[in-house]
Amino acid sequence: MTGRLAIIAGSGGLAAALVAALAKRPMVAALEGFLPEGLVPDQVFRIERLMPFLNALRDAGIAQVIFAGAVQRPRLDPALFDPLTAQMVPRMLTAIQGGDDATLRVVIELFEESGLRVVGVADVAPDLVPGEAVLCGKPSAADTRDAARAAVIVAALGAVDVGQAAVVAQGLCLAVEALPGTDAMLDFVAQTAARPDPARPRGVLWKAPKPGQDWRVDLPTLGVETVRRAAAAGLAGIAWQAGGVILLDRAAMVAAAQAAGLFLWARG
Amino acid sequence: MTGRLAIIAGSGGLAAALVAALAKRPMVAALEGFLPEGLVPDQVFRIERLMPFLNALRDAGIAQVIFAGAVQRPRLDPALFDPLTAQMVPRMLTAIQGGDDATLRVVIELFEESGLRVVGVADVAPDLVPGEAVLCGKPSAADTRDAARAAVIVAALGAVDVGQAAVVAQGLCLAVEALPGTDAMLDFVAQTAARPDPARPRGVLWKAPKPGQDWRVDLPTLGVETVRRAAAAGLAGIAWQAGGVILLDRAAMVAAAQAAGLFLWARG
Repeated sequence: MTGRLAIIAGSGGLAAALVAALAKRPMVAALEGFLPEGLVPDQVFRIERLMPFLNALRDAGIAQVIFAGAVQRPRLDPALFDPLTAQMVPRMLTAIQGGDDATLRVVIELFEESGLRVVGVADVAPDLVPGEAVLCGKPSAADTRDAARAAVIVAALGAVDVGQAAVVAQGLCLAVEALPGTDAMLDFVAQTAARPDPARPRGVLWKAPKPGQDWRVDLPTLGVETVRRAAAAGLAGIAWQAGGVILLDRAAMVAAAQAAGLFLWARG
Repeated sequence: MTGRLAIIAGSGGLAAALVAALAKRPMVAALEGFLPEGLVPDQVFRIERLMPFLNALRDAGIAQVIFAGAVQRPRLDPALFDPLTAQMVPRMLTAIQGGDDATLRVVIELFEESGLRVVGVADVAPDLVPGEAVLCGKPSAADTRDAARAAVIVAALGAVDVGQAAVVAQGLCLAVEALPGTDAMLDFVAQTAARPDPARPRGVLWKAPKPGQDWRVDLPTLGVETVRRAAAAGLAGIAWQAGGVILLDRAAMVAAAQAAGLFLWARG
């Protein structure tokens, strides 16, 4: 790959994890209102001035961009649009009405039409997106069945654009991720503790991208906090779609999982 | 309809609500370990002796049965089977491995093969299962959209046998029902309070049977406790599939919803 890389950072720790994983520091740009954790952006931009921002990236010698982090429906101020970006508003509005996936597709199109190549985390930092492997522990036969059932549930949810995670124990679905996110779901499992039979398998957290989503953007993430909360919820381990989930801090996750007796499994 | 009615009661308050709604007291039988609330059964039976129980029902002049209440995977003791019921075990096991819906289908078959007609709540107590109507309050245009989106989500979940309810606000899914049930889901919404924009519509609880399920058994229920928890979660109202959801205590629900400013809507 040639040309300098820019990270378009959203909120959360992904942009910082990505910078740490790269040999050469990229430019970091962030959307106003969604600043990343642990990282000071080189530039802050607004959607209302997207086209001048894209031009500035090109002028700075940027050839590739990577989206890293969450952005939730920024509020747009009609008074702030520049003339070029204003021309894009009808396309943006149509996309926004089509939901988050449609919006992302249009954002990627606008970047690529400006001559910037949109790449994924796996392209620039493959270590953050492990392929098929058991990273620690050992899933049992029951855990394997629970992971498979959870994968079916998450695929069905993804098709209606709900969440990217679920918890299944003994074949039964204990919780499904919605807007409040994975941590809130795990806290719910810890509180309700509705294990069908406490003497039998403890259950699996499963995480995967939505079916059909563009793996260059908005991949789900797992971090050491996920491991801690999965342990507090009494689960046997965490499994996820190999190559489709970003590990924010792999070494710390493995250490925490080993300490708590959980398995970590990138399932093929 | 002719012939005496027997209620096969499970846990929860549905059997008592049904007895209260019927002009003539039916026989009440309950599965050991899953006794109903607010009602003393005339008979308690075990799955291991299902065939003698069905014969006893017929001998007592019962022609129709209705299933009322929840039964979660009873544990079977191989030593307790009588010879006739033992012959049914292979069929039962195949069904159990096929999930809750398959199990219910076989249970209905066994009752009907014994000459007992299985009827639904709507057949004997239509007041408990209201058809299309707004019972109180007035859903806004945004509430109507949220209910429609929640209906799509619950249908997708039902297809993978997860839950029968979801909460949607401003088009976004705040929670989805899983094993812990509707009350636990509403408490989760109250705790996370993840309303995308507090100034905008507050959201709708939607409840519906699973797609393709037999409406004679295992219909979802709503009660006054649901209304209280929906109010505590800050929702605008409760909507459900008209004719497909049982109201355990309609008058008390309407009173509680009016007091809290919630709408109740059987959506067609």
